Amino acid sequence: METVIPLFDGFTALDAVGPYEVLSRLPDNRVTFVAATVGPVRSDTGALALMADRPFAEVDQGDVLVVPGGPGTRRRVHDEELIGWIRAIDASTTWTTSVCTGAELLGAAGLLDGRSASTHWARTDQLTRWGARPSGQRVTVEGKIVTGAGVSAGIDMALFLVGQMAGQLVAESIQLGIEYDPQPPFRAGSPAAAGPDVEALVRAVTVPDPEG
Amino acid sequence: METVIPLFDGFTALDAVGPYEVLSRLPDNRVTFVAATVGPVRSDTGALALMADRPFAEVDQGDVLVVPGGPGTRRRVHDEELIGWIRAIDASTTWTTSVCTGAELLGAAGLLDGRSASTHWARTDQLTRWGARPSGQRVTVEGKIVTGAGVSAGIDMALFLVGQMAGQLVAESIQLGIEYDPQPPFRAGSPAAAGPDVEALVRAVTVPDPEG
Repeated sequence: METVIPLFDGFTALDAVGPYEVLSRLPDNRVTFVAATVGPVRSDTGALALMADRPFAEVDQGDVLVVPGGPGTRRRVHDEELIGWIRAIDASTTWTTSVCTGAELLGAAGLLDGRSASTHWARTDQLTRWGARPSGQRVTVEGKIVTGAGVSAGIDMALFLVGQMAGQLVAESIQLGIEYDPQPPFRAGSPAAAGPDVEALVRAVTVPDPEG
Repeated sequence: METVIPLFDGFTALDAVGPYEVLSRLPDNRVTFVAATVGPVRSDTGALALMADRPFAEVDQGDVLVVPGGPGTRRRVHDEELIGWIRAIDASTTWTTSVCTGAELLGAAGLLDGRSASTHWARTDQLTRWGARPSGQRVTVEGKIVTGAGVSAGIDMALFLVGQMAGQLVAESIQLGIEYDPQPPFRAGSPAAAGPDVEALVRAVTVPDPEG
C-alpha cells in the first residue's frame, strides 16, 4: 500500500506530519512525500522544511492521498500542476483525504462538489466556493473522501482511516504506540470552548485572505 | 526568544513537529532545527526527513530547548557531540524540555538525576539508568526541566510552556489556531485504556533494545 502526501510552500507542518506519524506505522504501507521538485519544502512559518522525496511527475498513483493545508493553499488553488496531480491521484485512490484547508485543494480539484466536508473552523466559508457543505465535524466521511478539521485533526482522521483499512486492533496499537492520550492543559480547541475573546485574537492574527 | 530543536537520525517526527507547531506560533519566538550538519535528517521510519538549518557548532544558546525522542535515542545516549551540546544549551535555557525518549538524552546529559520525569510508557524503566524517577504523567515539571510522555504528548507539553511564558490567553489562542480539540476515534492512548492485548501488540512490534 502506498500513501502519498503532497507538499507546497506555505503548508502547515503538523497537517502533514500528524497523519504521516499514524499512517507510517500501518504495516505494509509506504508513505511518500511528493512535491513539484525533489528537495526541501518550507512550511508556513519558514522555520521548518520537510523533504519531498519524489516529484509529482514520477508519482501517478496512490492508495491513500493526504493533502495538508496551511496559508499556502490560498494560492495553490490556482496551481494547475498541483490540482491536476491531486485529480489524477484521486482516480487511483481507495481514500482521498485532506487536513485543514487542504480541503480547499480537494475543492479546487472538483472533488467536494455537493459533498459535506471539514476544514479549519476559521475557513469554513471558503469551502462553499467549491460547492461543498461545511460539516463542522472533526472528521467528515463522504464515501472515499475524508476531510479533517484544522491542523491537529489529521491525527484523529488518520486513526479513523487505519481503523477502516486494518481494523480497530491495529488502529488502537498505533494510538498506543504514539501515546495519543491527549490532555490539553486548556479547553480552547474550538471557538465554542475557547470563547469570543480567544476567537477574536486568532482571527486578528490570521492573515486576511486577499480573495475574500 | 529562541527555541532550538536538535535532530538526529532515527528521531520520531511528531515528537519534534508537535512542539514546533505550537511554539512557532508564539509571538517573538524563533524556532530553529539544529543537527550535527546542516541538511536533511531522516526520521525513524525512513519515510520523512526534516531539514536542519543550523549545525550544533554554530548554536550555543537557546531560551527553550526541545529534545525529541525516537528509536534513534538508544544510540545517541553515547553521542558525546549531541549530549555535550544539550548540556551546553541547558546552561542558557529558561526551559529545557524533552518529548518521549528524548528524556533519555536529557538523562545522559546528567539533567534528570534525582528528578521525576516523563517518557514513552514502554520505556519508563530506561529513565532509572540516569537516576530519574518515572512519573507516569503526561507532562512532568521539575523546575525548568519539563518532560513529556510519548510522541503526541509534545503538543500538550508545548501548550503548557506557552501558558507559562506568555499566559493563558496566548496559549488558548494557539490551541484554537491549531484546532486542538482532540477526538480520537478509539480509547487506546494509554496501556490502561488500551488493555493487555493492544499493549502486547505494541510491545511485540517495538524493536528490542540491545542495551536492555
